[in-house]
Amino acid sequence: MVDVIGVVVEYNPFHNGHLYHLTKAREEVPGAHLIGVMSGNWTQRGEPALINKWARAEAALQSGIDIIFELPVVYAVQSAEGFARGAVKTLEATGIVNYLCFGSEAGQLEPLQTIASYMEAEPPLFKKELQLSLKKGLSYPAALHRALSTVSRTGKGLPFSAEVLENFFTPNNILAIEYLKAVKKISPEMVPLTIKRRGAGFHDLQASGDIASATGIRRALFKKELGLVNKTVPGASREILYKEIAAGKGPVHEEKYADVILSLLRRSSPEKLATLPEVIEGMESRLKKAASSPDLHTLIKELKTRRYTRTRLQRILIYLLLSLNKETLSYFNEAGPHYLRILGFSSRGKELLHRIKTHAFLPLVTRPAPFIKDPLISPGAKQMMHYDILATDLYVLGYPNPDQRAGGEDFRHPVVKSDPAVSMQE
Amino acid sequence: MVDVIGVVVEYNPFHNGHLYHLTKAREEVPGAHLIGVMSGNWTQRGEPALINKWARAEAALQSGIDIIFELPVVYAVQSAEGFARGAVKTLEATGIVNYLCFGSEAGQLEPLQTIASYMEAEPPLFKKELQLSLKKGLSYPAALHRALSTVSRTGKGLPFSAEVLENFFTPNNILAIEYLKAVKKISPEMVPLTIKRRGAGFHDLQASGDIASATGIRRALFKKELGLVNKTVPGASREILYKEIAAGKGPVHEEKYADVILSLLRRSSPEKLATLPEVIEGMESRLKKAASSPDLHTLIKELKTRRYTRTRLQRILIYLLLSLNKETLSYFNEAGPHYLRILGFSSRGKELLHRIKTHAFLPLVTRPAPFIKDPLISPGAKQMMHYDILATDLYVLGYPNPDQRAGGEDFRHPVVKSDPAVSMQE
Repeated sequence: MVDVIGVVVEYNPFHNGHLYHLTKAREEVPGAHLIGVMSGNWTQRGEPALINKWARAEAALQSGIDIIFELPVVYAVQSAEGFARGAVKTLEATGIVNYLCFGSEAGQLEPLQTIASYMEAEPPLFKKELQLSLKKGLSYPAALHRALSTVSRTGKGLPFSAEVLENFFTPNNILAIEYLKAVKKISPEMVPLTIKRRGAGFHDLQASGDIASATGIRRALFKKELGLVNKTVPGASREILYKEIAAGKGPVHEEKYADVILSLLRRSSPEKLATLPEVIEGMESRLKKAASSPDLHTLIKELKTRRYTRTRLQRILIYLLLSLNKETLSYFNEAGPHYLRILGFSSRGKELLHRIKTHAFLPLVTRPAPFIKDPLISPGAKQMMHYDILATDLYVLGYPNPDQRAGGEDFRHPVVKSDPAVSMQE
Repeated sequence: MVDVIGVVVEYNPFHNGHLYHLTKAREEVPGAHLIGVMSGNWTQRGEPALINKWARAEAALQSGIDIIFELPVVYAVQSAEGFARGAVKTLEATGIVNYLCFGSEAGQLEPLQTIASYMEAEPPLFKKELQLSLKKGLSYPAALHRALSTVSRTGKGLPFSAEVLENFFTPNNILAIEYLKAVKKISPEMVPLTIKRRGAGFHDLQASGDIASATGIRRALFKKELGLVNKTVPGASREILYKEIAAGKGPVHEEKYADVILSLLRRSSPEKLATLPEVIEGMESRLKKAASSPDLHTLIKELKTRRYTRTRLQRILIYLLLSLNKETLSYFNEAGPHYLRILGFSSRGKELLHRIKTHAFLPLVTRPAPFIKDPLISPGAKQMMHYDILATDLYVLGYPNPDQRAGGEDFRHPVVKSDPAVSMQE
């Protein structure tokens, strides 16, 4: 049996930290293949990706990933739990992934695993404390921290000191916990591996050596501070990034969607806004009121609280943009992915695809057009694909070059075939 | 009894042709008051107005109109019949308008009246010929021309020669016919007057002396050819226009709404698009296909036919923008206006308002906020006002200055009070 490592990625953009992660993953399981499931044109932060999914898939292939599948947008724009589940289900559905490798600040499985198992058991005290903290208006990471600290102090909870829990609930650790929960539930035979993240933290905007956070790199790019970009993004990825920018297809900025989002907010009734995922406890009235903001920046500033973080608010706006409501997402979360959409593969990935064709328990899709026209495909699968296509059709309206804004790119763009310049596979 | 002349206007922008019309109207009925019912922020051509409704109302007051009422947007963006009916019903509802004065290329009531009466009687032959010509794909004016020519030739129809009918169905003559039909049906005691339009034709882009069409003036303004603007727009109106532009609240261009409209088209199913007014016979599929266009210009170019003229297509896009469907418009057309929204009045208009308060059979609205909160106001009236408010909330997103794009302007903007610099009333 061939070893296959699954990775869940956004590569927005692909940088040295990602390269380090792939190198380390290969060291953990020598000779293994790498399959990535990647967000499409919108990310988990509720933002448009810097460059489109095909360009980012190309960067991934050139950096040593063998196949890139698209994480359907209905999962890609969800908070940690829905995102992680959608991704793990996608990897599981290939039928050949036996490792899941993710980065984390913890760098060790043990504490993440302990917390994941504890959370999954849903002990009443923990559940109560978590709800209480959320009700008080804490953000999810802060509420998790407080709830676990409280139960730890009772002695009946977790074997962690306050020191260990302090600063533990970083975005990547939280995602890691969700991956572990998802693996246990969906794919218990998949072996989890974690790699300690190097250098700059998730929120750090400064580079640390040749590593910077994707957020820092995006910000530098918008400010045209190419020094940081050149230092922290490997050559292949950088070339693709600059090629896309030269073509006027990037960098895509969320402010480009301000008019569309403000129009939708101004058109929508509070009742309609209340149907959006993650909108609870009267947020719909605050959204409706803030719809009068002259721009997106003011809108977010008006709405931001400890509990409604920027990323959560941005996700809510993307749900609105894509017409995703609570009911739709519940259905997709229950049903899981309906297909394996191939964005790209390398020569090495091509061999792997033959194995996937035999083992996968979801249809492989290279061309969405015949897929959505196929009378044998379920309405749910078509709807899921419809959202992916719509996500691209709206995304391209944010391209700096007006000539590039035509819809239907999902029907035209070929699957990306690309290999690393220097072999990284041995 | 005081004589009151009603005029139906867009003043986009107020120009010398409009001034001429007002002067002539006053000559027809010496000493009469003038009441205008004016489109708000969107016009009958399906375009955003160059500057907002309050600024245009101010220009009207300074040019000698005594009171400006807003034509609710649900009528303002309809084709000639719905537009004319909504406007005549609004004037009728004041209870004090006894003349309706409109411009026309014909310049005489007789031929307009004959055609209006003939059309209203709906003789089977005419009806059949009109439907036939529309089915063949002719535009409404061309189809009207062909149907009336055909029935004229039978001898059983109209007393018009082919020469008279040739070039008769200009936009203003068609509107004039609709005004006459509306007056007969809604307000038979209102006396119609028509003034021959001077100088440049509706579609002419060149000025003829000090007269240019509003289309020509708008085009000149966007091209910054201020020579034509200065020559053809009277001082008071020009000052207001330039003041708005200096504040970054104009000139508003339809291309500013391209992303919003393209997004809505890309999000909408053909079934949804089929519910839009004026969308018939499979146009929904063509709309859905054209939604892939990279910009509005290409979109219109793709869709334009003899029957689906630019203005008709633009109106359809505005219906989409404002969420107006066939059912909603049918209701509003059936019900008629629910209120008299005052945009502005002069000192002379103030006295008139006292008389209107006694005679009007619709509520006078100066402040929309208490109106929509009033438990005694009908849901239909609130919905109509909701569309007017939404129309402004979406309109302001097209302001060149981003700081001016806040929503809720209908709740904040005071009623305009302004007088002509030089008395024009005697």
